[in-house]
Amino acid sequence: MFAYFVRRSPIIQRDALFKTPQCKIAPAVHPSRWRCSATGSTNGPSDDHIQALVQLTVDRFYLPPGHSFQHGTGCNYGPLGTELKKNMLDQWWHSLTRSKEVQVFGINTINTIKERAIDGDGQLKVVNMETLNQEFDLQDLNKDQLIQRLRTLLRNTVSLRTGLLQGALEQYIPSLELVKKKLPFGLAETGSCFQSSDQPGCPAEVTQTSLVWFCSSGTASKWLDHWARQRLQWWRKFAVAPSDFSCSDITDDELGGRASRGIKIVYSFPWGEEPLETLWSRGDTELLQTHGDIRAKLQCRDGRKLVVPHVVSVTGNMDRGVMAYLDNSLQQLKKADGKQKLHQRKVMKLHPVLAPVKVALDMGKGATVELRQISDVLRLEFLEAGISVWPGYLETMATSMEQLNTRYDEMGVLFSMLIGENTLESGLLQVRSRDTTIKETMHISEVKNFLTRYISAADI
Amino acid sequence: MFAYFVRRSPIIQRDALFKTPQCKIAPAVHPSRWRCSATGSTNGPSDDHIQALVQLTVDRFYLPPGHSFQHGTGCNYGPLGTELKKNMLDQWWHSLTRSKEVQVFGINTINTIKERAIDGDGQLKVVNMETLNQEFDLQDLNKDQLIQRLRTLLRNTVSLRTGLLQGALEQYIPSLELVKKKLPFGLAETGSCFQSSDQPGCPAEVTQTSLVWFCSSGTASKWLDHWARQRLQWWRKFAVAPSDFSCSDITDDELGGRASRGIKIVYSFPWGEEPLETLWSRGDTELLQTHGDIRAKLQCRDGRKLVVPHVVSVTGNMDRGVMAYLDNSLQQLKKADGKQKLHQRKVMKLHPVLAPVKVALDMGKGATVELRQISDVLRLEFLEAGISVWPGYLETMATSMEQLNTRYDEMGVLFSMLIGENTLESGLLQVRSRDTTIKETMHISEVKNFLTRYISAADI
Repeated sequence: MFAYFVRRSPIIQRDALFKTPQCKIAPAVHPSRWRCSATGSTNGPSDDHIQALVQLTVDRFYLPPGHSFQHGTGCNYGPLGTELKKNMLDQWWHSLTRSKEVQVFGINTINTIKERAIDGDGQLKVVNMETLNQEFDLQDLNKDQLIQRLRTLLRNTVSLRTGLLQGALEQYIPSLELVKKKLPFGLAETGSCFQSSDQPGCPAEVTQTSLVWFCSSGTASKWLDHWARQRLQWWRKFAVAPSDFSCSDITDDELGGRASRGIKIVYSFPWGEEPLETLWSRGDTELLQTHGDIRAKLQCRDGRKLVVPHVVSVTGNMDRGVMAYLDNSLQQLKKADGKQKLHQRKVMKLHPVLAPVKVALDMGKGATVELRQISDVLRLEFLEAGISVWPGYLETMATSMEQLNTRYDEMGVLFSMLIGENTLESGLLQVRSRDTTIKETMHISEVKNFLTRYISAADI
Repeated sequence: MFAYFVRRSPIIQRDALFKTPQCKIAPAVHPSRWRCSATGSTNGPSDDHIQALVQLTVDRFYLPPGHSFQHGTGCNYGPLGTELKKNMLDQWWHSLTRSKEVQVFGINTINTIKERAIDGDGQLKVVNMETLNQEFDLQDLNKDQLIQRLRTLLRNTVSLRTGLLQGALEQYIPSLELVKKKLPFGLAETGSCFQSSDQPGCPAEVTQTSLVWFCSSGTASKWLDHWARQRLQWWRKFAVAPSDFSCSDITDDELGGRASRGIKIVYSFPWGEEPLETLWSRGDTELLQTHGDIRAKLQCRDGRKLVVPHVVSVTGNMDRGVMAYLDNSLQQLKKADGKQKLHQRKVMKLHPVLAPVKVALDMGKGATVELRQISDVLRLEFLEAGISVWPGYLETMATSMEQLNTRYDEMGVLFSMLIGENTLESGLLQVRSRDTTIKETMHISEVKNFLTRYISAADI
């Protein structure tokens, strides 16, 4: 993900979501040596925060260390980052396709596009090395003939998509039957998108979310506001500090004539604001263009009138979104112990719905075989309820409870549960909360329902 | 998806999952004109089945009609196909990452690879048109110099991945800390993969599932069998006719020295068998190769011994999987009506867990405003329980119940519910089952629990 912070494309980029942020993080071999050059001050509070964030996300399996950051080839995720991103994408998907207010249908289109319809596409070609080698080996061509042949070959070659808009516009006509030609409706999709970067030979890659909303021209501006409000609410719902997520109009300069209005949802990173999502009121030009300007094919019912719909696009960058939530959720708390020594506690306070691991199970001292059996049963119960469990009790290395709690807090685990001798005797176990650090005693028969209720209560 | 049936690559392909099946379906402009040339007979029962399948999947929003089939550029999905594929991927993901028996972690890696490590990768290069044009425009180069420059450029250019194995092998070292260097464990991933095809300029694209399993050399063969059994069980769990899914050993010829043993899980399509998933016992060669042959870095604990693990790979083609379930689930039932006229009923009997739409809500005759209110409340209740609803009551066009049932059966909707005058008076509504066609009367307060129980009961 850090790849996006170090890239700066030499060409003018179509989509603000791919744009270089205001700050460069220079990656080094070891994450603790990363530094942020944007804050101006050396080792200010945001430097500390960024360093802690980078270190923690690597240590706690959100992002793997290594070459993908250094070379800026894009973003791999470790197991916890993968689950976090998956949870975010699931929430996004359900918030749209299971909406009670609007009709949005999910689609799934391929990564390559054949013809260049929308401005900006067609930059990154997918070429077969074998075919190229055959061209290079042709003996009786001069240089100009070779270039001519290569240009023709490349013209007929697919390119990687830069966004999901084109795919959705193509699916507009097949979708008309689904909605009985009634406006408004939307098509939702998530997927990888690509754009050239300033790293030679390495395109930027990002997981986009896209809602393409079809409505009458008169309502387009109202819908733009509706979706901006809805999307901002969505981002804030899962935030620890919701005010870090905000909304602003896109200036006429940024619009560049491509849309009549635009709104962006931005997140205040320690190094400055960056857009997470952009909304454009795009008119009907691109829809017409995609379908050969045949208005009759595109008409849809707006009440009693037949109209060619206008398009509102809502495009998000989920990789930057993951980063935003990680940044927003990391809290560093200083506290003094009995000996007046300062300790720093780092907690990844991810929203209960997004947290990759909901509960960790550990064993106290006692009859190992029996405690292990109980842990297995409890783990199974959680898994069957769809609750992700960290089976700490399977680890054979001795670790103190304090070390375990530090680790779980940094991983963002909501609750950790300790199964001990007491559990064998009375069925009671100790439940520690990440957010309050308070330890409660609960009966083993209650913990699953407790956790289910806790997560659902947060999901309102 | 049909794209995969019409492609035949001129080069030897690494992965059986991309291979051309035994049959070619020649696509035409209208799906009803598609034909299968493999069955030998003309218009035999499997021809009928294929024609019905193609027609139905297009009519019922599983697959959109149009150019992607005709040009073989890959596979787009309509809204129902998207949900079906998503449900399958979710089930696959949970069956592995929430397993109670084994430790499998999810990862998420990027679509491009920098260096060619595994045989077969590196064929499809992602080149920036702007960079190429700059090369073409260089004046003082002769042809050989130009070719030389282009070759260098391409060597330093990323290529699209052909599979997910390489990404997982790279994530092996960062994962060691996660498992405290204890074998066995696995890394799971789903994502797009690419391979050259015989369509000039159009690579084949497929959504793969990948489990890369690290274990001691002595247990690799046992684990290969374990995973083959587990995967076959998984495919059969959701099937109407489980015996169409089967398992067979990969011959030595097919192995081609790349693995010591292999197993494939195949589905019997009407036009012949095709592999859905392949399992290979790959040894440690590729793992060592990926990490510069440094054995010390790779060592992991197998009991008390430190060993370099062997790799078992389990690679699935989820696009072909979608097709297999659609084929397997489509039942054509002939029945005579009162006048002895033969009717054919088509039912897409997708497994309750996979069915894209679980319930359809329609309104009978009566006080429209009140019935609509009740329908809205019920729809909301389903949505909040995560049950996908088809809001038939929102449609303004008059359709007979018989037409609606035909449509819902073809869409694979598990139950359709009719809210009528009766519901206003007594809270009772009519519930029709897709599988039995039996209509029951149920109280509105019961239907959500009934459906939840029905789906969970099928998910065992």
